[in-house]
This record gives sequence, C-alpha cells and structure tokens, in this order.
Amino acid sequence: MAMDRSRLRWNGWGFADHDDPISRRNDVWGWLAAELGMPSLLATPARALEELTLPPSQLDAKDRQVLNILFPERVREDLFERALHARGRSYQDLLRLRAGDLSEAPDAVVYPRSSEDVLKLLAFASERSAAVVPYGGGTSVVGGVTPHRGQHRAVISVDIAEMDQIEAIDEQSLTVSAQAGIYGPPLEAALKRRGLTLGHYPQSFEFSTLGGWVAHRGAGQASNRYGKAEDWLVGAELATPRGMLRDGDLPATATGPRIGDIVAGSEGVFGVITKATVRVRPAPAAVEGRAYLFRDFARGAAAIRDCVQSETPVATLRLSDVEETRFSRAYVRAGQRRSGWDQASGVALALASFKRPCVLIAQFEGTKVTVRFGRQRFSRIARHHGAIPLGSGPAMQWREARFQAPYLRDPMLDRGLGVDTLETATSWSKLHGLYTAVKAALEQGIAASVPRPGAKGIVMCHISHSYPDGASLYFTYIFPRTLDGDDVAQWLAIKRTASDAILANGGTISHHHGVGADHLPWMAQEKGALGIEVLRAIKRTLDPKGVLNPGKLIPL
Amino acid sequence: MAMDRSRLRWNGWGFADHDDPISRRNDVWGWLAAELGMPSLLATPARALEELTLPPSQLDAKDRQVLNILFPERVREDLFERALHARGRSYQDLLRLRAGDLSEAPDAVVYPRSSEDVLKLLAFASERSAAVVPYGGGTSVVGGVTPHRGQHRAVISVDIAEMDQIEAIDEQSLTVSAQAGIYGPPLEAALKRRGLTLGHYPQSFEFSTLGGWVAHRGAGQASNRYGKAEDWLVGAELATPRGMLRDGDLPATATGPRIGDIVAGSEGVFGVITKATVRVRPAPAAVEGRAYLFRDFARGAAAIRDCVQSETPVATLRLSDVEETRFSRAYVRAGQRRSGWDQASGVALALASFKRPCVLIAQFEGTKVTVRFGRQRFSRIARHHGAIPLGSGPAMQWREARFQAPYLRDPMLDRGLGVDTLETATSWSKLHGLYTAVKAALEQGIAASVPRPGAKGIVMCHISHSYPDGASLYFTYIFPRTLDGDDVAQWLAIKRTASDAILANGGTISHHHGVGADHLPWMAQEKGALGIEVLRAIKRTLDPKGVLNPGKLIPL
Repeated sequence: MAMDRSRLRWNGWGFADHDDPISRRNDVWGWLAAELGMPSLLATPARALEELTLPPSQLDAKDRQVLNILFPERVREDLFERALHARGRSYQDLLRLRAGDLSEAPDAVVYPRSSEDVLKLLAFASERSAAVVPYGGGTSVVGGVTPHRGQHRAVISVDIAEMDQIEAIDEQSLTVSAQAGIYGPPLEAALKRRGLTLGHYPQSFEFSTLGGWVAHRGAGQASNRYGKAEDWLVGAELATPRGMLRDGDLPATATGPRIGDIVAGSEGVFGVITKATVRVRPAPAAVEGRAYLFRDFARGAAAIRDCVQSETPVATLRLSDVEETRFSRAYVRAGQRRSGWDQASGVALALASFKRPCVLIAQFEGTKVTVRFGRQRFSRIARHHGAIPLGSGPAMQWREARFQAPYLRDPMLDRGLGVDTLETATSWSKLHGLYTAVKAALEQGIAASVPRPGAKGIVMCHISHSYPDGASLYFTYIFPRTLDGDDVAQWLAIKRTASDAILANGGTISHHHGVGADHLPWMAQEKGALGIEVLRAIKRTLDPKGVLNPGKLIPL
Repeated sequence: MAMDRSRLRWNGWGFADHDDPISRRNDVWGWLAAELGMPSLLATPARALEELTLPPSQLDAKDRQVLNILFPERVREDLFERALHARGRSYQDLLRLRAGDLSEAPDAVVYPRSSEDVLKLLAFASERSAAVVPYGGGTSVVGGVTPHRGQHRAVISVDIAEMDQIEAIDEQSLTVSAQAGIYGPPLEAALKRRGLTLGHYPQSFEFSTLGGWVAHRGAGQASNRYGKAEDWLVGAELATPRGMLRDGDLPATATGPRIGDIVAGSEGVFGVITKATVRVRPAPAAVEGRAYLFRDFARGAAAIRDCVQSETPVATLRLSDVEETRFSRAYVRAGQRRSGWDQASGVALALASFKRPCVLIAQFEGTKVTVRFGRQRFSRIARHHGAIPLGSGPAMQWREARFQAPYLRDPMLDRGLGVDTLETATSWSKLHGLYTAVKAALEQGIAASVPRPGAKGIVMCHISHSYPDGASLYFTYIFPRTLDGDDVAQWLAIKRTASDAILANGGTISHHHGVGADHLPWMAQEKGALGIEVLRAIKRTLDPKGVLNPGKLIPL
C-alpha cells in the first residue's frame, strides 16, 4: 500500500491532519521569545497553495504523449503534485515553499512501478533531454530532491512510492529484498510478522523510504546496534541510463570494490535505486532504556567512548550537551508537565552541584541476555564517569516522542523563528575541538544576523551515533529570523560559517544527511580534487548525458 | 626494520632456513600416496636458481641513469631480486618458478621509502612507458604481483618493504596510521607495546603487509571479531599517476562513496597504497579456544549460523568438513603423535556413531567477561546442535600451527603432488548447494586429469569466516600431478571447473584471496558488464596510461 501523497503537507512536515499541540502553548512561545532576547515573536504564516501559480511546464505535446503511453495514469502535472515535489524538507526548502516560491517545481511527476519502468523513463529522459530527479520520501534536508534541470530542457521528478513491494525474505540468511520505495512503517510491519527487524529508525522513519536511506547513507536512532545504511546494505539494483547495475547477495567478497559501496551514498546521481537487499535481525526480545545525568559533556562523551570501545552491546547512546539538556527540560516545564528525570531521587542535588549537567539516553535491544549484559555494563561505565542514574522514565519519554521533533518546525516557522540542524562526525581525538569550533561558529553566525540588539540564538548539540574510532555531532539551532526579508541569505551565512568550521576542524560535511545541493561547496575539500574526479568518472560512465539529479553530490 | 629479502625462499614459502620436519616423515608420504591411489610418489625437485638465466632487461641506459638518480642504491637488477619478484606464491607460481620459468621476472625492483618516492616512480613509469607492479609481501595466490608489462616497454616491481614506519597511534580513537609496507609481526609488536592489536592474522601473517591486506580485502583468522580489511580500514593514501588520493580519518560519513571503499580491493591497479589508517582494539585480556565434534557439516554450519546471528562474541569459528577432519586426524596419527581430541572422553564413542564427524575450532578473545560470555553461549549452541565438546587441546594445537600450513606445500611439490586452495562465500541459504557443487567440481576436475587409473584427489573444505548473512568456504585439494608434463594446464582445468561451479551456484569468485590475474575470467560474470565499466572508469581516471599492474582485477 503506497503512501497516499494527498495526505501529506506540501510545504511542511508529515501528515496534513497531524495535530500540533505546541501551536496552542502560548507559555512555550513566551518562554522561547525571552530565551532568544525578543520582546515577542512575529507572525510569519505560509502562503496557501491555492494562491500560487506554477512556472509553465517545459514538457511539450510529444513528451506528454510518450509519457502517458509509457505510464498511463501515472504522470501527474497538477498543482499539488508539482508543489509537493518542488523541494525537500530542509529549513531552506520550507522557507521557500512557505513564501510561495515554486520556481523549482518539476514539470511532471512520474510514478513508476518497476525497475523496467524506471529504465524506460531514463531512456525517455536521455532521448528527450529531460533531467530525472529520484524522489523517495522527499525528506532530504540538504536539497537532495530539488528538481534542478541542469542543462536539460525539462525536469521530471520520479516518485518511487508505488515501488513498495517486499520481494523476498530469506529467513536463513536474515536478508530481505524489497523495492526501494517502501516506507519505514510498512517495511517494519512486514518484518515484524516474520519476527524480524531492520532496526533502521531515522527521525524521518514514517516518511522516508528504503531507497532514500541507501541513497544518502542514512543512520537510524539505533545505529549502535543496527549500523548505518552502508552497513546493512547487502546488495542493490541501480537503474541507470546505461542499464541495470546489480550486486550479488554476498556476505563478503575480495573481488575489488563492491558495487554496493558505490550505490550507498549515490544520491540519485548514478542511477535510481530500485531494489535493495538488506541485512535484518530477529526482532528484539527485549528493549530497555535508561537515562543518566553527567557532570558535563566531556564526561558523557568519555562514557560513550568507553562503551563502544569495550564491546558493550547498546542500541542507542544519545548525549545532549548542557544547552540541549537545559532546553528540553525547560520546554517540558513550560508545559507544566514535570519531566521524568526531575522526579528521580538525587537529581535536585545533582543539578545544584552539576554546573553543566548533560543528560544521556541509552537504549538496549536484543535478546534478554544481551540487554541485561549491555545495561549492567553501561551502568558501570556511567557510574565510573560520575553519572547519576535517572531511571527509565526519561528514556521512555524520548522513545515515545522520537519521531515528533520535525513537527515542531512548522509552528516555529509560523512565528518568525528559524530552526535548522546540521551534523558531522570525526575521530574521538578531534571531537571536542570540533564541537567547540562548530558551536562557536553557529553562535557567531547567528549573532551576525539577528534582527535586533540583544537578540540571540540557541545552539544545542548531541552525540547520537558513536563508533570505536569516533562519533557524530548533531547540532540544532534556533534563531530569530532577520527582518530584512532575506531569510534564505541569513540561513546561508550561518550555514557557511558552521560548514567552514566543520571542515577546518577535521569533521565530515555530513554524517548521515548527505550532500545534495547544500553541501556541494564543501565536497572538493572533503574528497580532494582527485576524489571528485573519481566520482565524476563513475557518473559519466553510468549517466553519460547527465540526466540524473543534476547539481547534487558531485561539484562540476 | 624492513623484512630482509635475502632470508626468503625465491621459489617457495617463507624463510629459506625454515626446517620442514615433514620432509623426513616417510610414514606420512607413504600414507598420502595410498590415499591418492598412487603406488609411490614421484621425485619432482625444483631447479636451482644458479642454473637459471633471466630474460634480458628491457631497461635502457637512460632508464637506469634516471632510476639510479631517483633511488640511489634502491634499484635491484640481480638474479635473486628479479627471481624473487617474478611471481607470487600460488600453486601455479610455484610450479613455474620451480621449473625455472623466469619469463615474467621484472626488469628491475625498486625499493621506495616514501609516498613521494612512489609518486616519482609513477611519473618515471608514465614518461618512460614502464609498467609498475606493486609488491607488498609477495604472497598473492591469485597472480596479483606477477610483473606483466601489458602494452609497456618495461616492467618494474615496486617493493614497499622499506616503507614500514608506524606514523601515528591515536590511543583515544583507537586508530593507527602506518606506511603500507609494514609486515604483520612488527606491526603487532609495536601495537602490543601500547596494549593494542589490529587482530588481523591471515595465514600469511609473517610474510604479508598492511598494504597487501588492504589491496586484496584480506581476512584474518579472527575475522569474526576484527573484521576483514575493508572493515578495519579507516582511511588510506593511494599514490597514483595523477597524484595522491587521500581519505580522512572519519568514523562514518554520508558524503557519497568513500574513497577507502575504492582503495580496499584495488589490487594495485588504481595506485600504490602507501599508507593506511586502521582501527585497532585493546589487546585481548583473555584468549581461549575450544573444539567441538559435530555429527556432520550441516549441523556444524547451523551452529555457526546460530552463533553469528545471535550476537555471540567469538573471534574464530572454523569448521572442517568430514574430509578435512579425517585428513588432519590421520596426518597427526601418521606422525605417531596422538591428537589432542582423540584423548577427549567420549570421542571414541562419538567417532563410532558419527559417520561424518566434523571438528570445529572456536576461539574467543577480548575482555575476560566477553570471553566467558562468548564461550558459555557458544557451548550452549554447540550442544543444542548435538556436538561433543573436545576441550581446549585441539584448539591450542590449531593455534600453534596456524601459520605453518603454507610450508607444507614445498615438500609436496618436491614429490609429484599438486596442492591448491580456493575460497568463496555466499549467503546461508545457498551455502550447502555451493559446498556440494564446488566439491563435486573439484573431484571431477581432478578425476579428469589423474596420471593413472585409480588415482584420485583429496578435496577438503572448511568454513573459516562467517557473517550474519552467510559464510566463506575454503577448499584445499591435493592431487597427483599429471605425467605428461603440463602441470599448469592440469591445474588450470581443475581451477576452471571449480570456478565455473562457484559462479553458477551463487558464490563470489573470491572471499579474501582477491582477483589478480587468475580470477579475471570470472569477474565480468560476477560484477556485470556495467560494473566492470565502472571499475575501468576509475582506472582510466587515476591511471590514464595504464602503467599500474597490467592484467589484474579488471578484464580488458
């Protein structure tokens, strides 16, 4: 059952009928205004779709004729479909969509049902000079699905939502082959019926696809246990203008670079991922969560490092810095609910003595014995680093709300606020330097653009993915939007400052969001000139006319 | 301290002064002749190096002049150096070397000391039309280091033995950066002094290099714990004719395909790996081994599958099939020593009732708690599959002798015997089909080529690397050599039959030996035509004149 596009917000997050209770919480907005040094928040509503007009389609009568023969009743050119596919879901995307900017809307949206359909569309595109932009769930936050036409006459968004069949479940090898357009919930539901799980739970889980996860090397919230997309990907099928590029379902080989390693992170520029075979696991017999309060970020990070370097089985380790800890707690308080961890014994005392308290959420999944083993060992590690256990309450709260955060953006955007996230990763020895530098860069970038004296941003960070050799840093920043009207320029200036700081301090420009169009300016520095040439060579081989997703991943 | 080349056998395995006690064991040879259906074994000694002449060098006076200016006292053209570098250490290589065939000897051997040296050599090669063949430890068993000149005038073996410095140990991130020419023992010794280990112990450990391991995606005997080369590789430096291709020391990224994924398995055709940054671990506080006897191969394989699919921490799981079990046991008996597991209680009984007994060696490494946890859980799994525990004796015997097997080849080659190994991997659901097919193919291939009626081969197999989704199969086959003199043709016929069976039954043409020249004919089938084009495109970009390791990895 494909995701029904008409249920989605064309210019915001998730389902159109989703209730945003925070919209009615004036206490929260008052508190947030004070935090940002603003006397009050502005009203900055989005424009209604009905008011807007699309740029004229570049498809001609012949294009339409051929497309409608190839894909009867699966070519959409209406306002809603073209607007929905005009952009992804980054802060910049939402700013532009809410302002009514549909200049990047595709000329049409096509819904293929099979790999063969995709090959046909690519043949059409190559022949008729149309760019093809693969679209999974459309939740890219780096401009990965924006329909740039590049050098081509027209641009078509290829929405794989109807390619959502599970093709094979190999219970012996614990692998599953599925069409790439399947969304998180139906995939996990089907696996659950067989006692299995992929365990890939990105924040976009409800609205993103298997193909999208692979295309941008996504990471789920339980990546400590299940790995990133490139880890659980066994094999893929990539439809390219030159034909199908396929990979066997081999557990390991020594036959040169693996095709799957080229497909993971290919972001639609080498081909359209039409199928993926992935490693699954028995559904966990036990899931437990615990929270801990650390004296500061460094001590929390040290506990994570000790954990991942000591073979302690965990599913999730999520350490908020002092700002994120404070923000989450205050946010809950403003709503008159008492947070779970405020009720824990000893916490009041700790909060008084911990000047920079940082909360860590740990989740344990697996067999009962694995969960007990992991929990006991992590508990010892946390205590060794002076943490105070907060029990399971805050961890349960986090788990319940873990897909909700993106819904908070739309009400902020209604109120003159800017909000964005960015993420990076580096080795443990560089992590604190990177953290300090990026945080400072974001604060400076925001300070340089606030609309009035005394106004400021909130810059928060957490570690959410960790490895024996390093970890990711995930920054969330909220700021009052500029009054001069160029919100996009304000965002871009902040983004540039932070991104330069990432590269200068040994971080990667993205740990799991991908490159898209937004991170393109930093790719040459990260990959080196010769590395970029390698990517271009693969691109030229698979997509000689450059019809696939122009302007993404590979700098020209 | 670089490996002293003069200590090595130019036409066999390992150190020249290594004692081969098996040479004096006439009981073993008599038993083996009977096993192979031969009245007696032949005498097929190797030719002495002093008798041989090299093909004339294709280097001219100008080449020599330039090389000697670039690499003073590091250009070797003597008989020993050219003969040593003429081939790797496959069965075919040894056959040819022992027959005195030095037709593939390089025109010279150059010993660079730095990445810059390698870049200079590549510039020389591009300008002077010389092929460059990277040489680590030279233990390739797939023709990976044979100095083919391709379309070029001359061919130079670039031996990286003097590039053996450890450049950085990051104890916080548990990563080590070292020049690629470092051998196993000095690398592990240096790590041990810091309480660390890479844990990569291929059978060639004493004679192979870090760069070689990465170049062919090697797997060590403890790969269940430490992973294959592509798993522990964090970043690499690849010297190419177009300059250095570098990778950051990032734990994970989402910025398109990783450069390291292209370097791992590149087999010297994209560049010379000059440096690698690798993930290390704390040296294990505990190491324990246990052996088990299973009723048959399928039950042993099921135990391995249960183990790797149930998060049970093991370092090594090595299951011999009935032939390998019988061979190892009989081999030990022929030497009048009683094997460790023959002494175990209940074994006599089991051997009587188990018609197809298969021995499994399990090794556990890590913290004490991890080792105990893994051992207890695996023991339960083994019992569940009806295994009889054989205690730690056979596991210790295996561990002590684990680098010795390659030394057994030379005495066999002296006695008219052929011996080769080949390996593959596939998913669990295809494993038994693949095992049966390849075993049958090897037996048929041997039967078609034996020198007399009644003669036959011994075909043995073990599983030595396992994954949640599948496992490797490693075949060893011993056979009487043909009497018509064309030993290489005999080997090739057997190899072809087996390799065709691998591909036809869903296996990879190599799990950890690599492709080299020997597996080239099966690459197009494994990677697909478009996959090969991708490899060619990377090759053209990094090595436009094709000077690097002609005739390897990528079919023309």
